[in-house]
Amino acid sequence: MSEKRTEISALGEFGLIDHLNEKIVIRHSSTLKGIGDDAAVIDSGEHVKVVTTDLLLEGVHFDLSYAPLTHVGFKAVAVNVSDVAAMNAIPKQITVSIALSNRFSVEAVDALYAGINAAAEHYSVDVIGGDTTASRSGLVISVTAIGEAKKEQIVYRSGAKVNDIICVTGDLGGALVGLQVLEREKQVFLSNPDMKPELEKYQIVTARQLRPEARMDIIHELRELEVIPTSMMDISDGLASELFHICKASNVGVTIYEDKLPIDKQTFDTAVELGLDPITCVLNGGEDYELLFTIDQKDFHKLEKHPDIHFIGHVSKEEDGKYLVTKSGTAAQLKAQGWKHF
Amino acid sequence: MSEKRTEISALGEFGLIDHLNEKIVIRHSSTLKGIGDDAAVIDSGEHVKVVTTDLLLEGVHFDLSYAPLTHVGFKAVAVNVSDVAAMNAIPKQITVSIALSNRFSVEAVDALYAGINAAAEHYSVDVIGGDTTASRSGLVISVTAIGEAKKEQIVYRSGAKVNDIICVTGDLGGALVGLQVLEREKQVFLSNPDMKPELEKYQIVTARQLRPEARMDIIHELRELEVIPTSMMDISDGLASELFHICKASNVGVTIYEDKLPIDKQTFDTAVELGLDPITCVLNGGEDYELLFTIDQKDFHKLEKHPDIHFIGHVSKEEDGKYLVTKSGTAAQLKAQGWKHF
Repeated sequence: MSEKRTEISALGEFGLIDHLNEKIVIRHSSTLKGIGDDAAVIDSGEHVKVVTTDLLLEGVHFDLSYAPLTHVGFKAVAVNVSDVAAMNAIPKQITVSIALSNRFSVEAVDALYAGINAAAEHYSVDVIGGDTTASRSGLVISVTAIGEAKKEQIVYRSGAKVNDIICVTGDLGGALVGLQVLEREKQVFLSNPDMKPELEKYQIVTARQLRPEARMDIIHELRELEVIPTSMMDISDGLASELFHICKASNVGVTIYEDKLPIDKQTFDTAVELGLDPITCVLNGGEDYELLFTIDQKDFHKLEKHPDIHFIGHVSKEEDGKYLVTKSGTAAQLKAQGWKHF
Repeated sequence: MSEKRTEISALGEFGLIDHLNEKIVIRHSSTLKGIGDDAAVIDSGEHVKVVTTDLLLEGVHFDLSYAPLTHVGFKAVAVNVSDVAAMNAIPKQITVSIALSNRFSVEAVDALYAGINAAAEHYSVDVIGGDTTASRSGLVISVTAIGEAKKEQIVYRSGAKVNDIICVTGDLGGALVGLQVLEREKQVFLSNPDMKPELEKYQIVTARQLRPEARMDIIHELRELEVIPTSMMDISDGLASELFHICKASNVGVTIYEDKLPIDKQTFDTAVELGLDPITCVLNGGEDYELLFTIDQKDFHKLEKHPDIHFIGHVSKEEDGKYLVTKSGTAAQLKAQGWKHF
């Protein structure tokens, strides 16, 4: 065949997604928000529904040589709940589809579903449907989550305004560092199966990778404190990458401060041990599933004392660019790397 | 490890699904119907939302050696629209997730999306989200469809009543016969690549397999005629298997008549040519995506003259069993085989 062949790598993951999205046509006025945020938003009378979906493949998104199936199930739900949280909505229902080969036993499937059901209970969501089918190769999990909020509560990526304060929850970089530890121990084990993986001193970071938490606690607290962020995302691809998304959607710039970035001690120490720059892990490590949001300055006093919300910088004009102010006081241009699967 | 290992094949596909569903807990009153019908139903004010999802894997659900990617994309949407139709609802939004390896070019992905977008236009649904990711092996497509209806319009599998008339749309067995033709021509091609597949005389049946239509036309017509079926399903696993589902959900029996079963001439002739019993194809052939529904006798006159709705039998008491009356007048017990992927 003489047909043109363009490699996907020529566009990259985000390039491919943009390329495909260009052709999408929206026909229904009830589709308030289609592609382009953490979740889609559908009008539904007094409330709106938010819808988000994730497709997880063995060997790409998880490695069963170190990820217990129960954790894989929990995480598959949590990452979707996190996207609902990022819209400032409350998750209500999920569908779960799985494809698996006969390599998996009923007991293995039960372990997977134990995690799915534990997450459903933890986040109070109903498993309302799904599809169970055969796979010729690895395990495939597809979860769709549906959440609910009042229309005026929904927070998009596009609402950040100049002088807003940039907030992140929890600490960052742990999931990436945890992944590096797990990969290292896997290689050690593969080269010498008698070696037992030493994971005890890495419990925090490996848990961040294997069993992340969606920050629904923060969403409920923001409601109690009557704070509606001006923009919000969850941090799945890395802080820098997510800041770029908010800047693009909101037509703003950002300045963040290295000494304000939250990093856990075990994450820091392990990053150093692995020869990684801790700040790079914080900026570009994915899968932390913490929340990144911006608030109006008038709301600052309501969150000021919150032990798990960190104020890392402020929103600036678009033409002022995107900067990281280092501990030495130098302003360095932020770079978004994100995660590349292709 | 001395852990117990139960093979999935010991439970079978439906057994595994039942086993997993036993542990599902429903927490929200807005979840009107969870697992167990063509789609889930969520309360949403005046209207309800129906939600359905399908996971399709290359090598299991489609074979790219004869299925053009455009058709694969169209079909992935159509099968979900068909599930929404089977609830007597109107599809409004879909999410589409794909996983693909670098074996696929941008042009190939474009062909897939051309089919997805053509189906979105054809069925008037908005593509509102999704996930695009890498795969280590074949193409994976996960579609979730969301539809809408008034609560009183929703038709479950569970509403069939004794003496209701059993209806099917279109004709049956074509998709299975089409699959057999495509598989035969593939084997011919594999054993001699110089042979060109002879598919012209099989256009109807191969189209039934490669590019099925969801019967939204019937759903709209039923509304115009003010007929609300008492129960409804789409025929994805085969007529006999779907009748078993309705009997189980409605606590009824059925009697259907061989001479009333709709079969297209090309399907009949090709089945005979392939050495298959045409009636077996009609009863157990999957993927036709026609509608199976029951109506109250009072509604019969409204549909009597419809050229594409066939009246194949009636609902009986549960204790009367499930029977097929053959052309010779013998009543034979119906067997549900369905499709087995495991």
